[in-house]
Amino acid sequence: MEELDYLAGERKRAEFDVDAMKIVWAGSQHAFDVSDRMSRLVASDPAFRKDNRPMLSRKDLFKNTLRKAAHAWKRIIELRLSEEEATALRHYVDEPAYTDLHWGMFVPAIKGQGTDEQQKKWLPLAYKMQIIGCYAQTELGHGSNVQGLETTATFDPDTDEFIINSPTLTSSKWWPGGLGKASTHAVVYARLIVDGKEHGVHGFIVQLRSLDDHQPLPGITVADIGMKFGNGAYNTMDNGVLSFDHVRIRRDQMLMRVMQVTREGKVVQSNVPRQLVYGTMVYVRKTIVSDASTALSRAACIATRYSAVRRQFGSQNGGPETQVIDYKTQQNRLFPLLASTYAFRFVGEWLSWLYMDVTQRLQAGDFSTLPEAHACTAGLKSVTTSITADGIEECRKLCGGHGYLCSSGLPELFAGYVPACTYEGDNVVLLLQACVARFLMKTVSQLGSGKQPVGTTAYMARVEHLKECRCSAQKAEDWLKPNVILEAFEARSLRMSVACAQKLSKFSNPEDGFAELAAELVEASVAHCQLIIVSKFIEKLQQDIPGEGVKKQLEILCNIYALALLHKHQGDFLSTGSISSKQGSLANDQLRSLYTQVRPNAIALVDAFNYTDHYLGSILGRYDGNVYPKLYEEALKDPLNESVVPDGYREYIRPLLKQQLRSARL
Amino acid sequence: MEELDYLAGERKRAEFDVDAMKIVWAGSQHAFDVSDRMSRLVASDPAFRKDNRPMLSRKDLFKNTLRKAAHAWKRIIELRLSEEEATALRHYVDEPAYTDLHWGMFVPAIKGQGTDEQQKKWLPLAYKMQIIGCYAQTELGHGSNVQGLETTATFDPDTDEFIINSPTLTSSKWWPGGLGKASTHAVVYARLIVDGKEHGVHGFIVQLRSLDDHQPLPGITVADIGMKFGNGAYNTMDNGVLSFDHVRIRRDQMLMRVMQVTREGKVVQSNVPRQLVYGTMVYVRKTIVSDASTALSRAACIATRYSAVRRQFGSQNGGPETQVIDYKTQQNRLFPLLASTYAFRFVGEWLSWLYMDVTQRLQAGDFSTLPEAHACTAGLKSVTTSITADGIEECRKLCGGHGYLCSSGLPELFAGYVPACTYEGDNVVLLLQACVARFLMKTVSQLGSGKQPVGTTAYMARVEHLKECRCSAQKAEDWLKPNVILEAFEARSLRMSVACAQKLSKFSNPEDGFAELAAELVEASVAHCQLIIVSKFIEKLQQDIPGEGVKKQLEILCNIYALALLHKHQGDFLSTGSISSKQGSLANDQLRSLYTQVRPNAIALVDAFNYTDHYLGSILGRYDGNVYPKLYEEALKDPLNESVVPDGYREYIRPLLKQQLRSARL
Repeated sequence: MEELDYLAGERKRAEFDVDAMKIVWAGSQHAFDVSDRMSRLVASDPAFRKDNRPMLSRKDLFKNTLRKAAHAWKRIIELRLSEEEATALRHYVDEPAYTDLHWGMFVPAIKGQGTDEQQKKWLPLAYKMQIIGCYAQTELGHGSNVQGLETTATFDPDTDEFIINSPTLTSSKWWPGGLGKASTHAVVYARLIVDGKEHGVHGFIVQLRSLDDHQPLPGITVADIGMKFGNGAYNTMDNGVLSFDHVRIRRDQMLMRVMQVTREGKVVQSNVPRQLVYGTMVYVRKTIVSDASTALSRAACIATRYSAVRRQFGSQNGGPETQVIDYKTQQNRLFPLLASTYAFRFVGEWLSWLYMDVTQRLQAGDFSTLPEAHACTAGLKSVTTSITADGIEECRKLCGGHGYLCSSGLPELFAGYVPACTYEGDNVVLLLQACVARFLMKTVSQLGSGKQPVGTTAYMARVEHLKECRCSAQKAEDWLKPNVILEAFEARSLRMSVACAQKLSKFSNPEDGFAELAAELVEASVAHCQLIIVSKFIEKLQQDIPGEGVKKQLEILCNIYALALLHKHQGDFLSTGSISSKQGSLANDQLRSLYTQVRPNAIALVDAFNYTDHYLGSILGRYDGNVYPKLYEEALKDPLNESVVPDGYREYIRPLLKQQLRSARL
Repeated sequence: MEELDYLAGERKRAEFDVDAMKIVWAGSQHAFDVSDRMSRLVASDPAFRKDNRPMLSRKDLFKNTLRKAAHAWKRIIELRLSEEEATALRHYVDEPAYTDLHWGMFVPAIKGQGTDEQQKKWLPLAYKMQIIGCYAQTELGHGSNVQGLETTATFDPDTDEFIINSPTLTSSKWWPGGLGKASTHAVVYARLIVDGKEHGVHGFIVQLRSLDDHQPLPGITVADIGMKFGNGAYNTMDNGVLSFDHVRIRRDQMLMRVMQVTREGKVVQSNVPRQLVYGTMVYVRKTIVSDASTALSRAACIATRYSAVRRQFGSQNGGPETQVIDYKTQQNRLFPLLASTYAFRFVGEWLSWLYMDVTQRLQAGDFSTLPEAHACTAGLKSVTTSITADGIEECRKLCGGHGYLCSSGLPELFAGYVPACTYEGDNVVLLLQACVARFLMKTVSQLGSGKQPVGTTAYMARVEHLKECRCSAQKAEDWLKPNVILEAFEARSLRMSVACAQKLSKFSNPEDGFAELAAELVEASVAHCQLIIVSKFIEKLQQDIPGEGVKKQLEILCNIYALALLHKHQGDFLSTGSISSKQGSLANDQLRSLYTQVRPNAIALVDAFNYTDHYLGSILGRYDGNVYPKLYEEALKDPLNESVVPDGYREYIRPLLKQQLRSARL
């Protein structure tokens, strides 16, 4: 029923082949096919209906998720879907569920940290879902600081067992998804204690619930941690709390790929490099970057379509009012987010390559690129998720009042997305403590020592040039040149890092300096990460792009991405002397003219995401633009509308109107 | 039961008299007393319990609100509370309800736009709540553009009635709070049509529901518009949709203070100035600015207290870990928000004075200050609500993962607050179309014409000096001087406005220029509004502040507010040459040292808000800091924890574990 298409006129204006762009967006024809088939499969199956989610109670919401997860699994088996297809299907079901943790964390943890023998024992059970697993790391008192976890795993040589224990209230596991109600097993992270001595934090496979009746096993207390932000959103997930009262597990349930405890209680480091752990982190974070692009693209798609539907002000001679997408203020807020969507997509693609590269190197015993890869994935995780969270909310505001309705899809998208800023490394901690800033400072300190900076820091080798260079832009169009943009971003990033390093060197204790200058170090880290995203977008343009029209649009988006950043962070660029005020002003002029160029293509650029109305889950973002009648229909479904006179009228409104409140019992 | 106080040590560190600060925050001893009494009254009454809100279904949530509203009214009558006390009581009930619209919009609309006769007829009914009213302006298709409203009110001289009609789907009233289920009456805005001629948009009192059985009257279709963003939050409110099928009302139900329609069908302008409408807008927006301060203060209070409770990293020799409030990154995000809270409070106080001043002038027939007052309240509404919305979410993130739990109070605070960015004027529209930018451009164009800029634009009279002046800061401490700060903000604002005006002058059609330069005009407007806030904070410090300790803290907060803004918008200050890079860097050094000074006073500075735990509604923000056991308790209340084995296990988990899914019916 796509006869009616209020946006058909918009679609005709596109100056490029939207089908070709769909392939570019998907990454390949194959990826497009899988994604297209799976999204339609889900959309056409009433069992996966999700529009009623905001109205369900917590219990119904959770039960509904259990039903969908089971149904999805049934379909996966019936249709003999490949792993890739199954993953895509679960993605398009679009509902946080315990299976996310089972497939996304439990299975990978066993694969990454288990010995061959352990994998042989546990993986087949997990693959068939004869057990359901989760990943129990975070505790009530410890999130970011993994080394501070309090749960203990004490080896008992008498029985050849580990005793898993929660010594304090704050040592309770808290947050793990799938833990509260669904999982039968968990990979539990605990401090290994052997013969009274601590050996750091390790993973242990612990059975939590009986496979017969799902009751928690002796010594195990487990529950759900309660309601979370938003309607629907993560409330479909049973994030859980878990504590252990001296729970005994067999010795071979410690994941021993990297470190082993022998029958005799000896702690032995295996010949598998510890660095493998970082390889896994690169993997998880690259996934988060791709997810950021996806989440932001959904919001941008909704806001772009609705901005073309919505009209306000500017009617002349009784004609229709102006589409809000034609306002420069709307464009100035919306188009940089649309551009970011594409930018994050391509940097995500590049991270996939990086992960492959790092993995191959690790297998060959080459650890040289790992620190850089680790730092840059951490940084990109932080930068992309922060922008995406804020960007979804900005898209909601761009839809005016109606964006506040659940039926716009945006509230749930936001509430369901924001945890990404916190999980797998708090965004600010990641930029600072963990990775990026420290890596940058180390790199700067080694410049001139003969040690060449690698990968995304390679530009720092040109330190002398970048410290002195002057931006060559003399007119607005100069800001379309990739080398002009790139050099400005490189100069800004390098100069900020160098300035931090110089300030740091004045502290006698470097750690004091790090603490004092934390905020500036974070800014330098962000500058470096933004450079990476800009440069990967530019590299993408140099690859084989199908069709001039598509290429042209991507160039425009790349320039919008870079110049909007340049304007937003103008203070950095000016204070480091990377550009002049005049050049900043020219860049802004150019940016405005790019908005005009992208405008007629905006609808087609979001059509290229190829989202079904089911997946988008937004009345405002409907493909056909038929917004207002559908908002009406949706409103009438609210439980409050089951009766014209509301429940409570007799007790609480009528006595008030009749001035009979004094005698009423409230 | 405040024996246990984990934050007692923090409280001892305060370098000022917190009780004196409470009076400063409240505005006066009297205001403090009212607020203190009413907040305790609400907190101690179990009928006003609100911690279960996120778990209630929409219907229960709404019924519960009806109950609370009736109970509040009962208490107001029983205790013979004054209007001020009643308003405070409703405020501390802290739940959006139809009574907000009745008292906050319906009554003021009649007072402001009704004739004496109309007021005499309707106000007593409203004051006794014998009728319940709402304010029906926004339509499905029209929000910001009030002149574009489609509902019609056509005068029928034969019957001496108006016919209220909704000619299109998009003309349905959509959003008005209290409309969906509770209100018996509404002030409806519609295009007045007399004898085939349009006379603009006016307000009409229309009865919607029978006072006997609450059924909608003939020709009226009314319903709730469905779920909105967040758990609890605005879902306690029955925002409604309303359409009219030729509904007839008596002629005297048009609010006729400004314009009248006579029995003969003549349209007569009264001698009451139309500008009165703007006076009302000044009033509504000043209230929104105060509310912004309150909302942000709640979030800042929660984040500050929890940042002192939460420890992470930095344990030395097995000692406790570092309180996260001691990290500079945390301070750099949190303290500017804490400072903003105070800044918004004081600018809100000043707006109250401004409203009084404007009202007195209007009564004396002096309209000269109205445009400036209108522009600056619109701008301040926009700037303070945007920062508050983002700031609440930032505070949530500052609480790490636990901020995502509903029991942190922050998700509901955010979801309940964000509409303020859209209602009573979309924030971007306000800065641009409506008021601020246009007013600034007009002021700039008149400089040198002999017409002196007034009020908050008075500084523009020093245009020649401000265009040329150089910031005198030579060392970090110079940035503590109010005149240095003020001049930098004035120079930046003036130069941005002048630059916009120059660019505008190059367009042959000024409206084209306005459209093209919209984004820059918005930035100039923000700069002007920030200057107002800074200057009002500085003025406050020159007033009679009780005690040196209190004064010192306010000075620190004022400087943090200004210098954090200066850093955030460094691009503006540098590109306009208002400061040099070196001076920007010095300002940032000073800012860091101010963080260190405010740190020991942080807990006392949020204690000064005098919030009860009930009002704050946050486990993380508890006065006693006893966070972790209470998080646990709260979690166990979730309905999902009513049973250990979840509902749905038998149907959807067990068959999956037992590989019996094929035969299961899902």
